[in-house]
Amino acid sequence: MTDYVIAIDGGGTSCRAAVADRAGRVVGRGMRGAANIFSRSDAISESIVAASLAALEQAAIDVSRISGIPAFLGLAGLNVGMRQEQLAAELPFSDTRFAHDGIIALQGALGDGDGVIAILGTGSAYVARAAGEVRSAGGWGFAVGDQASGAVIGRMLLQQTLLARDGIRPMTPLASAVMTRFGDEQQAVVEFTQSAKPADYGSFAPMIFTFDAKGDPMAAGIIAEAVGDITETLDAMVFEGCERLCLLGGLAEKYGERLAPRHRAILRAPLGDPLSGAVQLALRAFLPAAAVAPDGMERR
Amino acid sequence: MTDYVIAIDGGGTSCRAAVADRAGRVVGRGMRGAANIFSRSDAISESIVAASLAALEQAAIDVSRISGIPAFLGLAGLNVGMRQEQLAAELPFSDTRFAHDGIIALQGALGDGDGVIAILGTGSAYVARAAGEVRSAGGWGFAVGDQASGAVIGRMLLQQTLLARDGIRPMTPLASAVMTRFGDEQQAVVEFTQSAKPADYGSFAPMIFTFDAKGDPMAAGIIAEAVGDITETLDAMVFEGCERLCLLGGLAEKYGERLAPRHRAILRAPLGDPLSGAVQLALRAFLPAAAVAPDGMERR
Repeated sequence: MTDYVIAIDGGGTSCRAAVADRAGRVVGRGMRGAANIFSRSDAISESIVAASLAALEQAAIDVSRISGIPAFLGLAGLNVGMRQEQLAAELPFSDTRFAHDGIIALQGALGDGDGVIAILGTGSAYVARAAGEVRSAGGWGFAVGDQASGAVIGRMLLQQTLLARDGIRPMTPLASAVMTRFGDEQQAVVEFTQSAKPADYGSFAPMIFTFDAKGDPMAAGIIAEAVGDITETLDAMVFEGCERLCLLGGLAEKYGERLAPRHRAILRAPLGDPLSGAVQLALRAFLPAAAVAPDGMERR
Repeated sequence: MTDYVIAIDGGGTSCRAAVADRAGRVVGRGMRGAANIFSRSDAISESIVAASLAALEQAAIDVSRISGIPAFLGLAGLNVGMRQEQLAAELPFSDTRFAHDGIIALQGALGDGDGVIAILGTGSAYVARAAGEVRSAGGWGFAVGDQASGAVIGRMLLQQTLLARDGIRPMTPLASAVMTRFGDEQQAVVEFTQSAKPADYGSFAPMIFTFDAKGDPMAAGIIAEAVGDITETLDAMVFEGCERLCLLGGLAEKYGERLAPRHRAILRAPLGDPLSGAVQLALRAFLPAAAVAPDGMERR
């Protein structure tokens, strides 16, 4: 039996790895660039391997042992297609199991308990566990989903800025600040969109909250629409008797304080992060004898 | 001096060419695939050349004469960047001049008169001419513009269908029909978006109007939002005393009947199509002696 397991949290903007030992302790961590399964698959496996090697190094484990260690991968975009087999074949681990990043986030935030999580980062997705049954919503990507995500509100900002610059909507300080970033050239905005990835659009999200705090009406409108989208989805996901709602991702705090009272009332801090959820699931999958505490970090 | 001019209407979904003689008569026409300047530039020049050669053939003009004929190009996406020089170098014409496709559309629809045009096809854009002054709005592309276009409402349809399938919004007959097209697999929708171009999203636009006619609430909601976007822009573009509003593009008829009364009151049929506008502008640029009738098709 293996002495170690590797756990991976591969999101849209970074890939994090942890190595845990037979006692369930995390003994090393590593991080690398994006591991979104939408991206080129060789770039994904590169990120996963690099983060894993960094974690092994931190744990002072000989990196050549990687081929004898099994890995549990929580990956963004996994609901798309059957690329797992190809990816598993490219990876050096002794055994490779996959889960949607929502599943490791749920496990990290709620342990084995019931509740709802909303992941609000570069993308967006929702997962609920009720009486042990898991169901998800969203997570369909930037083009036709990811409502309220950093990427989608960043795109809304560029759309509304162009409308303001065309004289169709009122110019606001936020729209002016965006145009200044593009040298006041609408064409520069459009050229940006020719190659922009979700994370590039998401880089405009912080401005929206900064200008909202100063009363900018365009910022307020974008945030109101985003909060409306979140509220609509939470109303469909929060089940009778649900006592825990956790918001995760880079925009969790900003949106948390703006939720409807019925949702704020059940808002709780997550028990752990998605990587800790991946560690719990890795230990359960590959070292079932190891009893794991809810945060995945310690043996009971 | 040249005996002929070539006029090009290069839109997002097709490229049309016309050859006109010294008398201003169109003597040949040709058509080929897309010439959106957003696309790979060699594909654009290929489409333009192929359409031009077809027009020369139809006119029974030796195709080897193409290098002695000047061309006036109206191209979608021309507001993006300075790719004209590169494109001109790739093209075989004796002289090459460019205009935004909105300019040839304006000339075709209104001749030399004042008024407003709204181009509502795969993309969307607006051009106004008031007291001879031309200004435009929109045309910023699928990612951050093109409100109410076929591509944008097609994308809205996929977004809202996924929300319905996730149980967040009510399922409707239209959303069911979309899911049926994707084998009832949400993942298939997301995979479609990985490579879908604006025209691919636009292929869903006709369904929206078909189901709206049957009272589908999702269809009605999407159309109401699109008509709201059009109305907002027309209110900014229609000037004091404006007596002509022309809608062009594949969705012109559908939207025309849904406009606000103040806009319907000035709605007129276009005098000619964008290609006829390009012919007028080609004759004016390269054969200024030729007096051209407003429809660009005949010498006065």
